Amino acid sequence: MFIVHIHVNVRPERLEDFIRATRENAANSLKEPGVKRFDVYQEESSPSHFVLEEIYVNQEAANSHKDTDHYKIWRNTVNDMMAEPRHTVRYTGIVIKD
Amino acid sequence: MFIVHIHVNVRPERLEDFIRATRENAANSLKEPGVKRFDVYQEESSPSHFVLEEIYVNQEAANSHKDTDHYKIWRNTVNDMMAEPRHTVRYTGIVIKD
Repeated sequence: MFIVHIHVNVRPERLEDFIRATRENAANSLKEPGVKRFDVYQEESSPSHFVLEEIYVNQEAANSHKDTDHYKIWRNTVNDMMAEPRHTVRYTGIVIKD
Repeated sequence: MFIVHIHVNVRPERLEDFIRATRENAANSLKEPGVKRFDVYQEESSPSHFVLEEIYVNQEAANSHKDTDHYKIWRNTVNDMMAEPRHTVRYTGIVIKD
């Protein structure tokens, strides 16, 4: 498995736009055969901070995701919504519920 | 739903002990009716850093979890394994896969 948490800080006036674009990307990403999970979280006490939790079957599936049209559309759409560059953290799964 | 990411920094010499105790706690927690997910992640580039991703059906279920024997055993067992106090972040789920 290939697991990342992508931390995104969004400009406060673009939260609704970001959520709309990211829901669309998640829905399409979940149709990829190599995507096991594509969750999106918004921090309660800091609503500009989102975490995209992406779990792929392997590194190759993670790479393939970046070649999809829906990823490229998302990346371009949200580019000017970011308050700062996004930050990716890779994890090993010690316990993962399917 | 009630969603938290609990960030834990473990003393490097206690990683195996922490993983063992936390696997046990996760397995028991997943038997609670109010627990939807109890995942445990270890950061690849910083293996002392763990994230416990806990999703409960509601706040009451999250409170009930803290009353269980397995939670109390875990809390007491890992207490002296922590390099620093653990840190909890609450999230709203924008997209959550069941």
